[in-house]
Amino acid sequence: MSSPEFDLIARHFAPPGAAGRGDVVLGIGDDAALLRPPSGMELVATLDTLVAGVHFPLDTDAESIGHKALAVNLSDLAAMGAEPAWALLALTLPEADERWLADFAHGFFALARGYGVALVGGDTTRGPLSVSVQVQGFVPPGAAFRRDGARPGDLIYVTGTLGDAGLALRLREASAIGAPGARAFLRLRLDRPQPRVQEALRLRGLARSAIDVSDGLLADLGHILRASGVGATLELARLPLSPAFRACLAAVEAGGHPALRSFRPGLAWADLALASGDDYELCFTVDPAHRPRLEALAADGLPCTCIGTVDAEAGLRCRLADGTPYLPSRRGYDHFAGEGS
Amino acid sequence: MSSPEFDLIARHFAPPGAAGRGDVVLGIGDDAALLRPPSGMELVATLDTLVAGVHFPLDTDAESIGHKALAVNLSDLAAMGAEPAWALLALTLPEADERWLADFAHGFFALARGYGVALVGGDTTRGPLSVSVQVQGFVPPGAAFRRDGARPGDLIYVTGTLGDAGLALRLREASAIGAPGARAFLRLRLDRPQPRVQEALRLRGLARSAIDVSDGLLADLGHILRASGVGATLELARLPLSPAFRACLAAVEAGGHPALRSFRPGLAWADLALASGDDYELCFTVDPAHRPRLEALAADGLPCTCIGTVDAEAGLRCRLADGTPYLPSRRGYDHFAGEGS
Repeated sequence: MSSPEFDLIARHFAPPGAAGRGDVVLGIGDDAALLRPPSGMELVATLDTLVAGVHFPLDTDAESIGHKALAVNLSDLAAMGAEPAWALLALTLPEADERWLADFAHGFFALARGYGVALVGGDTTRGPLSVSVQVQGFVPPGAAFRRDGARPGDLIYVTGTLGDAGLALRLREASAIGAPGARAFLRLRLDRPQPRVQEALRLRGLARSAIDVSDGLLADLGHILRASGVGATLELARLPLSPAFRACLAAVEAGGHPALRSFRPGLAWADLALASGDDYELCFTVDPAHRPRLEALAADGLPCTCIGTVDAEAGLRCRLADGTPYLPSRRGYDHFAGEGS
Repeated sequence: MSSPEFDLIARHFAPPGAAGRGDVVLGIGDDAALLRPPSGMELVATLDTLVAGVHFPLDTDAESIGHKALAVNLSDLAAMGAEPAWALLALTLPEADERWLADFAHGFFALARGYGVALVGGDTTRGPLSVSVQVQGFVPPGAAFRRDGARPGDLIYVTGTLGDAGLALRLREASAIGAPGARAFLRLRLDRPQPRVQEALRLRGLARSAIDVSDGLLADLGHILRASGVGATLELARLPLSPAFRACLAAVEAGGHPALRSFRPGLAWADLALASGDDYELCFTVDPAHRPRLEALAADGLPCTCIGTVDAEAGLRCRLADGTPYLPSRRGYDHFAGEGS
């Protein structure tokens, strides 16, 4: 499970000690990694593949691809409330391009260092561009956030803002729309998502269920609701939107840009925030008794917003500010059905 | 980290309990799997991607692809002396083809059940066909076979036979050559490699270093030699060849088939056994004092053959039966350089 290109990545960008962890007995360079899990902890393991043109636009720079491939996996760990530890990387490339590899590695390892993650093994292969990353972390027994933990009456929260990455995706071929700074912000949200790892650790003992928003809020919250056997009501006026999102969307709507033609006039913000993916924020539910603790965390720098409540009645209902029911036109992203199934 | 297609795989082919392991706290269906490693054991982790047309011929049936994607990873665990436990699967497919998925799952789970491996999570994605599998297993501290453990004087062994898969790959478009039974055997060796997991567990305490033969004996043994700072001498007459290999090769050489044109006349067997990959046998070294124990294991059904010795002098030397030095013309497989670099 090693190759010359992989050795290049490992040698130049992960010198021993850079992400040195005492629990790595044997890292890159053998048939498999040897790891020493902390005693008494549960292991949290996830594997995700990013495919060029599916999970990132074809014009995405290598550094962003390296970042994002690790970020989406760390986001899965965050959605479980886990502390990340180790990563494996399988990189499939059309050709061995040293410059591309260097940039990719730079993006990957900058993020890995930031979260104390050690790359312990992997492989490079020739083929159409895709990246598989497997990450593992730890959680105390019983402390993991599960999808099946939501209860009627729970408050529904999301971290950060929604819809930024989805808008960036739609604007990437409309260079004239919106202020450059706002556009750059949105594009960073698409290309360099920041996994909510620290936020998740602060939510231990509070979040009763959680998921990360990768396919869109409706789709992902829907997983929690189904797994928990409950429903929910969302207050659309409370959906957290970034200033850049608002500014660019206003510019788009003023110009009637075709990128948003499929959305309802005046309500593109709702459709984008509800159904576009790639934001990698956390959606989680908490016992209403914990509202003061959530507000204290929010005041202490954990960006989170209450957007609705869990109901006993199945189904997901959305309400506009005036109480009018809102029927979302799009559900989320399905890789096989194409967007907006 | 779940999708409708993945749910299909999981639902139809891995019913709860089929590979039920008490150490899986939470399997398929959440953001990540929750696992409980056995206390006091080291964790062995590996990730490999198979790409269509690179790691398996494009005409390979889905069941074989499912088998092989897991087998090559279990082979990495075997090369560490580990007992397999858990797998994650990331499947990238051009389209959602239920029949293909069913066959793939059949191949994957038949092998998983055979080794007590639980599939605990994964993902399906739209894109060019490739399969990433991550597996984990356990080994007692200090018991793992490492590449850097070979010492001068060690005996070099391989399990099973060499060159079968390489010959199958070259014969796949020459349907008239060799007896059908022999050809079918070779093709099974290519499509359905059997990871040497049980053999590896029986070698614990004996093998001082090990690797699996995925890229060819010379290339893979070369990794052991470099990591251990030693060299080796191989006795080519001792290379274990299957009856099917000998029979088909004789038929090819009698017919002058172009599939083997690049090999030396009369020595194609050596070049194939030394440099073709995909056999997934184990190559390992043992202290010569353990020869009687190895012979006892061989007599007790562990197929292994002593093929040479480790030398203090760097480099890999090959000798024919009459003692003549043999300079291999091919080193092994490099995915980026193409075959035979």
